Amino acid sequence: MSNPHQAFVLPEPLPLDSGQALSGVEIAYETYGELAADRSNAILVCHALTGDQYVASTHPVTGKPGWWERMVGPDKPIDTDRYHVICANVIGSCMGSTGPASIAPDGQPYGMRFPVITVRDMVRGLVALLDGLGIARLHAVVGGSMGGMQALSLAANWPDRAARVLAIATTARHSAQNIAFHEVGRQAIMADPNWQGGDYYGGNAAPDAGLSVARMAAHITYLSEEGLTEKFGRRLQARKDGTPGAKTFGFDADFQVESYLRYQGSGFVQRFDANSYLYITRAMDYFDIAEEHGGKLADAFAGTTARFCLVSFDSDWLYPTAESRHVVHALNAAGAPVSFVELSAPFGHDSFLLDVPALDRVVKGFLDG
Amino acid sequence: MSNPHQAFVLPEPLPLDSGQALSGVEIAYETYGELAADRSNAILVCHALTGDQYVASTHPVTGKPGWWERMVGPDKPIDTDRYHVICANVIGSCMGSTGPASIAPDGQPYGMRFPVITVRDMVRGLVALLDGLGIARLHAVVGGSMGGMQALSLAANWPDRAARVLAIATTARHSAQNIAFHEVGRQAIMADPNWQGGDYYGGNAAPDAGLSVARMAAHITYLSEEGLTEKFGRRLQARKDGTPGAKTFGFDADFQVESYLRYQGSGFVQRFDANSYLYITRAMDYFDIAEEHGGKLADAFAGTTARFCLVSFDSDWLYPTAESRHVVHALNAAGAPVSFVELSAPFGHDSFLLDVPALDRVVKGFLDG
Repeated sequence: MSNPHQAFVLPEPLPLDSGQALSGVEIAYETYGELAADRSNAILVCHALTGDQYVASTHPVTGKPGWWERMVGPDKPIDTDRYHVICANVIGSCMGSTGPASIAPDGQPYGMRFPVITVRDMVRGLVALLDGLGIARLHAVVGGSMGGMQALSLAANWPDRAARVLAIATTARHSAQNIAFHEVGRQAIMADPNWQGGDYYGGNAAPDAGLSVARMAAHITYLSEEGLTEKFGRRLQARKDGTPGAKTFGFDADFQVESYLRYQGSGFVQRFDANSYLYITRAMDYFDIAEEHGGKLADAFAGTTARFCLVSFDSDWLYPTAESRHVVHALNAAGAPVSFVELSAPFGHDSFLLDVPALDRVVKGFLDG
Repeated sequence: MSNPHQAFVLPEPLPLDSGQALSGVEIAYETYGELAADRSNAILVCHALTGDQYVASTHPVTGKPGWWERMVGPDKPIDTDRYHVICANVIGSCMGSTGPASIAPDGQPYGMRFPVITVRDMVRGLVALLDGLGIARLHAVVGGSMGGMQALSLAANWPDRAARVLAIATTARHSAQNIAFHEVGRQAIMADPNWQGGDYYGGNAAPDAGLSVARMAAHITYLSEEGLTEKFGRRLQARKDGTPGAKTFGFDADFQVESYLRYQGSGFVQRFDANSYLYITRAMDYFDIAEEHGGKLADAFAGTTARFCLVSFDSDWLYPTAESRHVVHALNAAGAPVSFVELSAPFGHDSFLLDVPALDRVVKGFLDG
């Protein structure tokens, strides 16, 4: 049971890491399950780069099920019969929370006038939402990928706001390779003539071609080489008349993996704003919790009151296990209680979204324990 | 001592795997060192995707040294005091050999009317060049990356044309992930409005933005995560006035790795044709020696008369060691003499081009032995 399409307007301007402040910030969110009378059973689920608040409800644009329906719901590992689950669209995104496509105070869309934000700024917005909802302390904050970054950022910067922190397939800082892949995506968008310096709103053609290429490049990094080989290998597309595929000696999508990638790109542009992609990848590239806290990651968690659980996947080469271990070592040094598991799954980084029963058990065990 | 800027026009049309034939094919090549009277000391060096014939001589466009000067020259591992080294631009490329930018029989550039070629077609062109030069049997064929594919293809399809086959950082087939990255590059080029269906020659603006994005994406795959971290980490660009870098909270290249990638992209478009990039990546994606020989790789090498040496690098995730081992097992099954070494080097796939002294020793030992 969800209460769909709620939005909260922040009563105060949101201060940002850049030194700017953003007025009239709106945060769109969904909730699932009843909030207990003592407000102690709230779980904040944080979404990834291209995710949104529709964690367990139908996406209003695509009509597809929520992105983590397998994890969130009645009797699911994040059990909405037991917990009040909140999932909000991060600022900078494009599913209802204030972002570059939103209308600025001058009545025009922000476009590239939107301030560059950080992951901590996103979390600052989420904390303001929690204030508005009257939730002083979460039962847990949970997230995978950029959602995990938010969970760690909340623990580091608002150390008494969550009793449990579950960070999956994530990192405490973006690596040079992570930044490099994001930069390719940004350059692809900004090279699209339709981008127009970000001023493509109001009926103009959007930079779909550039955004699609950005998505294709990123999508490869979400999968494992092994998973791609198993799913596609070198298999050719069947022809339209149903006969087995053959090389066409042309530039159509001969291989199934080509067709799949093109589909990922073209589907993505239907639901996502190119400028949001620029801003959110920038926030992720800027992400480095240690740097925010004097250079030592353990110091970032010195004041924490939470229990932590870190989960990595052995086939995730975007945020490999070493990144989670790095966080675990820092939490150990900070004296915080932490459990850590590397799960074996063939799906690469996307494993946190897919059918990995061992993850379900870890999530349920940590939240209910 | 090189004999620069030679070109050979094939006397016969070149038959292609697509079933088409290409007339008037020109192959541009460079040679280094004297050919022995008995013509027994020739080494064919095959270049990679974006390489060319200037293996050990100054590149006429960039003015930079040859791409393998560290390996080819007097007293170098491929010793031009001892061997006659031939390096030719593959067909489909853009440094003098016939490719999409060449003039078709109708007097207009081929553009996308150029036939889709395969790696075997490239080698067919090289073999025709060897015929023209009167070289019946090479002392060795040598190549890294796509150059290694050509070396293996020559051994499989012209089994008596080389006495030694040295294939470095390569594979006998392109994986789904390899295809996926290439497809991103092709889509980036074809999404550039300047591409114009390939008809951008003759003074029109070229699809530089798309080609640059393609190069940036590919370039990441040539390096290792470890190498990127060591070289750039999260270090920021120094400011123009020389003061230490700081986050600008904008979309300029704040991080050194961003600046480096942009530089790689913009430099590349000065020397490479976008259509050639489409055709050569397509050829690589089609590459699967086993498929050409009934599905079993060992069968491809059944008739070989060569000794083989395979070299991989432990940090190469584009063509990881398992790919070389796969070739070695097939050669074992075919009863061919083969040595194999995995070298430790931090530079990823690009290790074959960089300072890895152990590679020098392997190359020299194999060629002189």
